[in-house]
Amino acid sequence: MSTPVSPLAVPFPEIAPVAGVELAVGHAGLYKQVRDDVLLMRFAEGTTCAGVFTQHAVGSAPVDWCKAQLGGGGEARGLVVNAGCANAFTGKPGDEAAKRVAKAAARLLGCRKREVMLASTGVIGVLLDDDKITARLHEMEARLSAGGWAAAARAIMTTDTFPKGSVATAVIDGVPVRIAGICKGSGMIAPTMATMLAFVATDAAIAPEVLHALLQRHVGSTFNAVTVDGDRSTNDTCLLFATGRSGAPLIRRAGDKRLADFSDKLGQVMLDLACQLVRDGEGASKFVKVEVTGAKTPASARKIARTIAESPLVKTAVAGEDANWGRIVMAVGRADEPVRRERLSIRFGELTAAEDGAVSPGYDEARMSAYMKRAELEIGVDVGVGRASAVMWTCDLTKRYVEINGDYRS
Amino acid sequence: MSTPVSPLAVPFPEIAPVAGVELAVGHAGLYKQVRDDVLLMRFAEGTTCAGVFTQHAVGSAPVDWCKAQLGGGGEARGLVVNAGCANAFTGKPGDEAAKRVAKAAARLLGCRKREVMLASTGVIGVLLDDDKITARLHEMEARLSAGGWAAAARAIMTTDTFPKGSVATAVIDGVPVRIAGICKGSGMIAPTMATMLAFVATDAAIAPEVLHALLQRHVGSTFNAVTVDGDRSTNDTCLLFATGRSGAPLIRRAGDKRLADFSDKLGQVMLDLACQLVRDGEGASKFVKVEVTGAKTPASARKIARTIAESPLVKTAVAGEDANWGRIVMAVGRADEPVRRERLSIRFGELTAAEDGAVSPGYDEARMSAYMKRAELEIGVDVGVGRASAVMWTCDLTKRYVEINGDYRS
Repeated sequence: MSTPVSPLAVPFPEIAPVAGVELAVGHAGLYKQVRDDVLLMRFAEGTTCAGVFTQHAVGSAPVDWCKAQLGGGGEARGLVVNAGCANAFTGKPGDEAAKRVAKAAARLLGCRKREVMLASTGVIGVLLDDDKITARLHEMEARLSAGGWAAAARAIMTTDTFPKGSVATAVIDGVPVRIAGICKGSGMIAPTMATMLAFVATDAAIAPEVLHALLQRHVGSTFNAVTVDGDRSTNDTCLLFATGRSGAPLIRRAGDKRLADFSDKLGQVMLDLACQLVRDGEGASKFVKVEVTGAKTPASARKIARTIAESPLVKTAVAGEDANWGRIVMAVGRADEPVRRERLSIRFGELTAAEDGAVSPGYDEARMSAYMKRAELEIGVDVGVGRASAVMWTCDLTKRYVEINGDYRS
Repeated sequence: MSTPVSPLAVPFPEIAPVAGVELAVGHAGLYKQVRDDVLLMRFAEGTTCAGVFTQHAVGSAPVDWCKAQLGGGGEARGLVVNAGCANAFTGKPGDEAAKRVAKAAARLLGCRKREVMLASTGVIGVLLDDDKITARLHEMEARLSAGGWAAAARAIMTTDTFPKGSVATAVIDGVPVRIAGICKGSGMIAPTMATMLAFVATDAAIAPEVLHALLQRHVGSTFNAVTVDGDRSTNDTCLLFATGRSGAPLIRRAGDKRLADFSDKLGQVMLDLACQLVRDGEGASKFVKVEVTGAKTPASARKIARTIAESPLVKTAVAGEDANWGRIVMAVGRADEPVRRERLSIRFGELTAAEDGAVSPGYDEARMSAYMKRAELEIGVDVGVGRASAVMWTCDLTKRYVEINGDYRS
């Protein structure tokens, strides 16, 4: 049953405490095997919160819950996350199960239930057995501590093969503030917030609507710029919490210049987490950056990059260490975006495979083959129409992916 | 090197001669191994022709050639098809190589070069070595005969594991006419004419623009309603030839009622060929019909059906014989089309898995598992919004698919 750790895994970072944030994990028994499957987080009074969620048409009870409480940014004192059950496609009983979890946590944390955020991940169509979770909350509350980010990252894993975390320090008006985050997700990582849970906390003091704007600013080039198989989940959630306990001044406007370094560092943390999702793409053996340049518009560049990054033929060629640029031409064409055939060029790393619409005169199969053996690859495509560009991160499509996804429920 | 025949293969039909059509195959040496790789077809004087082609933005020399000659329907006396080289993304030299093949064939057949249609399939980005083809045309012309459809279907195969053909007899104004077709394609079979070559001939007498209208009428529900991996090729071509040698009256208007039976039978032949492409989907072990009902518009139904049919998570679940309807919910949501969550229902064959937005009360895992072991499956989804429907045919995504596509060039 146990899956080997992805060859592309990166180590979990040292995460020092973030003032105003406490964590605890517990074993609710949502899996057959014994493992921690619930995470409780407590945030200091006055913590602001913003979230971005799946755009999936069906959605899930915990996502509906958070959206209803948060809108464009709000306050939060607690977070309960469970693995093992997505509580999606479970109708009104699912909504009520979610609400009972929020209510129980609110009672323990001494806050209103609308200040408790929820997230669930696992098999969908199965009603959440909320009793199993609420029965554990009391002992978890007793164990809350400022450490334990790695354990938290482990407790929310599903098919993940390694825990994912990232950390940074920024300066706001001369005061250092900390940013720490964890995430989970390995299959179904696609643009528009695919099966992915990410929780990022900072001790900066940031007004809810500014927090919301920051999240929106970075999500497109981070979590929405990674793809494993193009599928998307009912439960995707990224929540950002700001406790205000760093001593840095409260930022009330998204345009405040004192936010520049924080915004950069937040973007770095989100990109680091997003790329770890790809590194743990189910069965992945190669980490691939796809860069499209020369497109007519940024949206066109993104669509071409995504079409390449999601093409099963490109992804299997990468798995086979085959610099099959012909398949990239296929994918480019399939995007139905403006492309100038006679100016199209394709490179793998620094090696040009095709230029001016035909195979490159300097094409060297031996050097190309050597490059393709690397674990981290870059595919560059210039479509020769304009000046817009976009980047997507993806992984290869291997036999292991099919194996994992062919027997997930068994 | 040799690939086992798909478990979903169907036998090649008996195809009796179609008046006015002759075929011959030859060995041009476009593959390392010894095999027939060129097909020559000769059509009687006055044969009309229509084609539909890839919408791929990059395209290929033979597709550009046919489109330039045919427009909305024209005349044709010959067809030269080669496997082993797509002659795509080869710039002006590729166009010239294609033209030289047409010219050589025209000289042999005693027609104008614009009456010779061309099609190529194989690796892209490699210039067609047209000498190898033209050197064989003379001996092939000498061997032209009214039989040999199965050999023709074999000569155009690439990764196909079985030759594909279909045949029907229709009646036009009391006169029986014959329709026969062959096709090739196994990977990259996607909507909008993905890597697929199909050639259908009839001895009916049909004006070019009527032939074109017929092809357009049926392509959406046949070749464009099948998908293997969502990828699309530079070379997709479907050509329809009508020799007029049956003795049936010439049909000059698409609305002519005498065309009804012919149109039905043509649709059947095209659907049969299209489904054989799916049956030979690379690594396929299951043939899956996806039917979406209750959609707002036909386009919406088609988009939802296609999103389900192309979802790697749905396709790997089918490979694993797992009735994972949760993944179908995922795919439905991902289509970004109107769906009423509380009325969504999902069935596998006659077995309802989900209804009214939640798992079905009568859900029986044992019966469902037994159903999923079949080689031919039907997935039905009602999205509860309107009355529009659509059907797509697809196959599962197996480890074998990844194997085949990871080392195609080696």
